[in-house]
Amino acid sequence: MTKSFGSDNHAGTHPAIMRAITEANTGDAIAYGADPWTQRVTAELRRLSGAAGEVYLTLNGSGANVLGLGLLLDRHEAVICAESAHINTDECGSAERILGTKLLTVPAPAGKLTPELIATRLTGRGDEHAAQPGVVAITQSTEVGTCYSLAELRKIHDFCAASELRVYMDGARLANAAAYLGCTLADLAEHADVLSFGGTKNGAMGVEALIVMRPGDAANAPYLRKQHMQLSSKMRFLAAQFIALLEDDLWLGNARHANAMAARLAAGLTDLPGVDVVYPVESDAVFARLDKRYIAELQRDWFFHMWSEPDSIARWMTAFDTPEADVDAFLADIRRVSLSVAV
Amino acid sequence: MTKSFGSDNHAGTHPAIMRAITEANTGDAIAYGADPWTQRVTAELRRLSGAAGEVYLTLNGSGANVLGLGLLLDRHEAVICAESAHINTDECGSAERILGTKLLTVPAPAGKLTPELIATRLTGRGDEHAAQPGVVAITQSTEVGTCYSLAELRKIHDFCAASELRVYMDGARLANAAAYLGCTLADLAEHADVLSFGGTKNGAMGVEALIVMRPGDAANAPYLRKQHMQLSSKMRFLAAQFIALLEDDLWLGNARHANAMAARLAAGLTDLPGVDVVYPVESDAVFARLDKRYIAELQRDWFFHMWSEPDSIARWMTAFDTPEADVDAFLADIRRVSLSVAV
Amino acid sequence: MTKSFGSDNHAGTHPAIMRAITEANTGDAIAYGADPWTQRVTAELRRLSGAAGEVYLTLNGSGANVLGLGLLLDRHEAVICAESAHINTDECGSAERILGTKLLTVPAPAGKLTPELIATRLTGRGDEHAAQPGVVAITQSTEVGTCYSLAELRKIHDFCAASELRVYMDGARLANAAAYLGCTLADLAEHADVLSFGGTKNGAMGVEALIVMRPGDAANAPYLRKQHMQLSSKMRFLAAQFIALLEDDLWLGNARHANAMAARLAAGLTDLPGVDVVYPVESDAVFARLDKRYIAELQRDWFFHMWSEPDSIARWMTAFDTPEADVDAFLADIRRVSLSVAV
Amino acid sequence: MTKSFGSDNHAGTHPAIMRAITEANTGDAIAYGADPWTQRVTAELRRLSGAAGEVYLTLNGSGANVLGLGLLLDRHEAVICAESAHINTDECGSAERILGTKLLTVPAPAGKLTPELIATRLTGRGDEHAAQPGVVAITQSTEVGTCYSLAELRKIHDFCAASELRVYMDGARLANAAAYLGCTLADLAEHADVLSFGGTKNGAMGVEALIVMRPGDAANAPYLRKQHMQLSSKMRFLAAQFIALLEDDLWLGNARHANAMAARLAAGLTDLPGVDVVYPVESDAVFARLDKRYIAELQRDWFFHMWSEPDSIARWMTAFDTPEADVDAFLADIRRVSLSVAV
Repeated sequence: MTKSFGSDNHAGTHPAIMRAITEANTGDAIAYGADPWTQRVTAELRRLSGAAGEVYLTLNGSGANVLGLGLLLDRHEAVICAESAHINTDECGSAERILGTKLLTVPAPAGKLTPELIATRLTGRGDEHAAQPGVVAITQSTEVGTCYSLAELRKIHDFCAASELRVYMDGARLANAAAYLGCTLADLAEHADVLSFGGTKNGAMGVEALIVMRPGDAANAPYLRKQHMQLSSKMRFLAAQFIALLEDDLWLGNARHANAMAARLAAGLTDLPGVDVVYPVESDAVFARLDKRYIAELQRDWFFHMWSEPDSIARWMTAFDTPEADVDAFLADIRRVSLSVAV
Repeated sequence: MTKSFGSDNHAGTHPAIMRAITEANTGDAIAYGADPWTQRVTAELRRLSGAAGEVYLTLNGSGANVLGLGLLLDRHEAVICAESAHINTDECGSAERILGTKLLTVPAPAGKLTPELIATRLTGRGDEHAAQPGVVAITQSTEVGTCYSLAELRKIHDFCAASELRVYMDGARLANAAAYLGCTLADLAEHADVLSFGGTKNGAMGVEALIVMRPGDAANAPYLRKQHMQLSSKMRFLAAQFIALLEDDLWLGNARHANAMAARLAAGLTDLPGVDVVYPVESDAVFARLDKRYIAELQRDWFFHMWSEPDSIARWMTAFDTPEADVDAFLADIRRVSLSVAV
Repeated sequence: MTKSFGSDNHAGTHPAIMRAITEANTGDAIAYGADPWTQRVTAELRRLSGAAGEVYLTLNGSGANVLGLGLLLDRHEAVICAESAHINTDECGSAERILGTKLLTVPAPAGKLTPELIATRLTGRGDEHAAQPGVVAITQSTEVGTCYSLAELRKIHDFCAASELRVYMDGARLANAAAYLGCTLADLAEHADVLSFGGTKNGAMGVEALIVMRPGDAANAPYLRKQHMQLSSKMRFLAAQFIALLEDDLWLGNARHANAMAARLAAGLTDLPGVDVVYPVESDAVFARLDKRYIAELQRDWFFHMWSEPDSIARWMTAFDTPEADVDAFLADIRRVSLSVAV
Repeated sequence: MTKSFGSDNHAGTHPAIMRAITEANTGDAIAYGADPWTQRVTAELRRLSGAAGEVYLTLNGSGANVLGLGLLLDRHEAVICAESAHINTDECGSAERILGTKLLTVPAPAGKLTPELIATRLTGRGDEHAAQPGVVAITQSTEVGTCYSLAELRKIHDFCAASELRVYMDGARLANAAAYLGCTLADLAEHADVLSFGGTKNGAMGVEALIVMRPGDAANAPYLRKQHMQLSSKMRFLAAQFIALLEDDLWLGNARHANAMAARLAAGLTDLPGVDVVYPVESDAVFARLDKRYIAELQRDWFFHMWSEPDSIARWMTAFDTPEADVDAFLADIRRVSLSVAV
C-alpha cells in the first residue's frame, strides 16, 4: 500500500511483542485466562495502575468500552459523553445495542468534557421520563488528539463523585496521554472507576486491558465479558502482548515515539500555506484544515482520512514505527503540492 | 502444567500458523479487513464452502455464533437447539443477552437434532403468546464428539426449508467433522444458511470464519459484527491464520490427527475395567464413564474435566499436536490405576 | 359468543370496579401517578402486603413480571423457573427480549418448584461459561391451578435466601391462592422479594400491582417502568380499579367465588366417564383429561382451550362472575355427551 | 387540585368514551383482541387511514412508539429524529433500551425535521463504524405544538423513500394536527410507513392505535407487541374507547376544541407585557417566554410546567374539556400578575 498516516491501527505488531507471542507458544496451557501469562500480566497491570479491583483482557477497544460501561451502569442508566466520543461516533451504536443505554452527548471543544459541560446533562435527574445519567465517559487521549491534564481529570472525577456519577475512561490511547503528560498509569487511573488501557494502537497485535479500580465493580465482569464475546480461549497470546508492552516500559517508549512524530509533523506544518492545525497536538494525531486543492494530490502517495469533508479537515496519525524520514517526506510533499497549487 | 486432555483450546498455535502471523507483520496495512490477507482468505473460504454470500472473520466462537444467529433471526424470533448446544450451556446466556432471543431447547441423544425433535418445538407457531422459532442451530461436530452424517444434515435442512426455518451450523469443530466424514467444506456448508468454521480449536491462535451462504443474509453483517465487538482492527493477523490453515489443507490434516488420537484413545479403552465410552467417537473427543475411584489419581498427572459429576463422565479431548506417546502413556496410566483400585 | 370456561380474562369488569373507574372521572388530575387515587391505593397495598418498599401499578401481567424480574436481576443474571411458568410459555420470550436474561427451566410436577428442583440449576455457579442464576420465579397460584402452601413458600424462600437467590412471585392469580389458603396478602408477600398482585384476572378491567418488599430494590423501578412502557398517564383509572378491589375485600370475594365454581365443576366431574381431573383443584382452574370424542361436541356450545392436544387435556377456568347455573349446565352437557358417545 | 394547563393528560375521560367502556362490559368476550369491538374498530381505523396493512391497539404512547419503530428497524439500525422528539426526551431512553437502537438527533427549529436536516445524519452510511439510519421519526403535531403541513410531510416522505429510509410518525396528538390542517386521517397517514394515532391525549382513558400502512411491515407485529408487554387481555375495553372516538368524529371534535382553546389563549396573550409566544400555535399547546417574576404567582392557582427553566419558557396545554371560562380566567390572572409586577 501507499505509506499511511491513516491510523495507528495501520501499523503492524512491534517486534518485541511478536517475539513474546511466539515465545508463549509452548506446550499446553489452561484456556480462558487460567494460565501463568495472564496471571502475571494482570497482576502487573493492577500494580501499575494502583487498582484494588481486577484487570480483564479484551479482544478490542469496543469490547473494552462496552464491557467497562456495562460494569458501571445500572440497567436503566444513560452515559454522558462528548459528541466526538468514539463510543458515539465510531462503534456503530454498540453501546446502545449491547447495553441498551442512551448516550447523552455534549458538544465538547477539543473533545474534552468539563464539569460544566457534564452538568448540562443532569437537568432531568429524578424525573422518570428523562434518561438518568449514571456514567460519564471520557477519552484520554481524546479522539482529536488532545489530552486532559491531571488537574482537568481530577476536577471531572471530583465533580462526578459528588454527583453520584461514575467515571469510565476510554484509554485506547492512554499510553500517548501518559507519554505527553509525563505521568504514570496510576496517575491517570486514579481518576476513573473503570478504564481501558489500549494495546492495539500502541504496537500490540490486538489486545486491550480493562482495569476495574474497585473490587465491588468487578464482581460481574467475568460473566459480562463472556456474554459480550470478549473472552479469549487461548488467552496467553493476549497476555503475552501486554507482557512485552510492560517490559522496559515499551508501552511508554512506543507512545513517546508516536507522539514525537506527530509533534514533528505539526512543527513542520507551521509555515506551510493552506494547512492549519486545528487542535493542540498532544498525542499521536494531527488534525489540519487543508486547502481542498491539495487533497487528491496528497492522497495519491499517502493514505489518510478526511476527518470532516465539509470543513476539509484531515486527520494524520503516527504510530510506534513511523520513521522520521516518512514525516519529513510527507512534509516535503505537502510543501511541493502547496507550491504547485499556488502556481 | 500437567499434560492436558482437557480441551483442544489448551493446545498452542500450530507452527505454520505462527509463521504466517509473523510474515504478515510487514509494514502498514489498512485496518478492519481492507487488507490483502483478508481479501484473499475470505475469497478462498467462499470458494471452498461454495458460499454465494460473504465470509466474515470473528475473534472467537461465541462471537461467530451470536453474529450468525443474529443474521438469521428476526427481532422477535427464537432458536431451536439441542439442550447440550454450546450456545445453551457454555456461553453464559450470550445469545439471550446480545440478541434477546429465546432458546427452545430439546433433549437430544448424542447431541444431535432430528426433524422429529425439531418438530416438538413448533407447536406454538402463529400464537402471539408463544416464542416463534426462526432458526434451528446445530453443532457439527457436536459437543459430545459425534458427527451428523451428510444424510442427517440434508434431512434437517430439507425439513427446515419446508418449515420456514433457517439453519445455523456451529462449526467450532467443523474441520473434525469433515475429517471424520471424509467430505469437503462445501459438502457441509450446503446444509446451512450460515455456519461458522472454527480455527481456534484446530491450531489457530484465535480466529473463526463466519460463512454466509446467500448474499441476502449478509447485508447487515458488517454492522452487526461491529456492534457485537467482533471487528478486529489489525485484521491481517486473523486472516493470516486462516491462510496457513488453508494451505496444503492444514486444517484437514490437523483435524485428522486430533481425530486419530481420540480414536486411538477410545480403542485403548475398550478392554479397561471401570471405563465405558458413552458416545460414538467421531471427532476429537472421548466421553467415558469412569469409575469414581480413578478420578483423583488420574487428575494428578493429567488435566481433564468431568463432563458430568453425578454421572461420573469424563471428557478427554485431543488436539492437532497431541503426541501418540501421550495417548499411550495416558492409557497405561488408566490401566495402572484400574489395577491398583481392583486390588 | 358461546359461554366461556376459556379464561378468567374472558370475564368483563366487576360492576363495583366499573363504578370506581367512572367515579374517578372527575376534573383534572396530575398524570403518571401523582394523583390522590394512586397515592391512596399504593399506600393501602403497602400496608396489606407488609411491604417496606414500594408499589407500582402496571398495565398488564407481562408488564409486571418483566419489570419485577428486572428489579431483581443483575445485568448478566439468569432466572430459574418451572418449565410451565407463564414467563416461559406464554409471554413470547419477553423476559429474554426485554431483559436479555436466560430462563433456566425445570420440569416441575404440578407447576411447583422445590428447593431440590431449584438446586438442579445451580451447578454452574461461579463458572463464567455458565449462565448465573440470580432469581427464582414462582407462580402463585400456578399455571395449572395448584397452590404452594405457606410452608412450601417458606422453604423456597429460606433456601433462596441461603443461596444468594432472590424470589420473584408471579401473582397474576394471587387472590385465588389467598382465598384457597385462607391467608392474608402479607402471608404470601413475605416469601417474595418482589411480587405481582393481579387485578385483571380477578375482575379488574386491566391493572396489576407490582409490590417491592424492600426499599433497596425499588430505587430504579420508576425508570424501568417507564422504559418498559408500563407507565400509565391517566393512572387514576388504574388506581381506581384497585381501590374497588380492596374495598370490603372484593378481591378475596371475587377469588373465593371463582375458586368455588372450579371446585363445584371438579366435584361434578368425579363420576363422569372419560373425564379425569389431572391436577389438584386449588384455585379457579380445572385441568382434565378428556375423551377425545367429547371435544368437538362440547366446544360447540362452550369455549375452552385444549391445554395439551397430544394428552387431550382441557383447561376450564372460572371467574368472579361464573354463575353456578353455568357450571351445572356445563356438567350436564358433559354427561350428555359422554352418554351419547358411550352409545 | 388547582386548575391545570399542565398537560392534555391531566384531563379525564370524555363521557361518551366512558359510556362506551361501560357498554362493552357485557358478558364474556374472547381475550387479546379476538373480540367484536376490536375487530370492528381496527377495521374502521384501517379504512379511515387508508392502511393496507394492519392496526394494533397499544396501552400507551411509548408502547406505540417503540413498537412502531421496532417494526421498521432492522436489528442494527438507528433512528433519525429531532432533538425535541418525545422518544428522545421523554421516554427515559426506552427506544435504546428495548430496541437497542441509537437515536441520531438533529436540532430542529420548531420541532420539525426537513429533508435537509435529515440529510445531515446520512454521512456515515455504508461505513461499518457509523450507526446506520433506517428510520426517520417525526411527530405530528410536534412536541412544541407546531404542525407539519401536508406539503412538508410529502417532502420528507419522498426524500425518505428515495433514500432507503422508512418514516415513523408519532401521532400522540395526530387528531390535533388533522383538526388544524383540516385534513383526514388518511391525508396524514399516507406520508408514513407506520404511525400512531393517539387516543389518550384526546379524551380516551388510555389507548393508542398503531397503524401499519403496508401488510409486509405487519407480519411480526403481534409477536413484538406481546414481547413489548403491550398486548391487553381484556382488549374490548381499549377498543371501545376508539369506537367512541370514531363515532360522529368525536376525535376531531375533541381536537378542534382543544386547538380552539389554545388559540384563544394565545390570542389573549398578544398584548400582555412579559409574555411572548415562542412557537406558532397550531395545536393544543402554547409555549410562551414568561417574565420570571410571574411564575410563582401564577402557579399558585394554575398547574403548568416550565418547559425550559433557563429560558423561562412555560408550556400551557389545553384539552378536549378545557372551558372557555378557564382560558379567560387564566388570561385575566396573567394580566393581573403583570400589572402587579409592573407596579
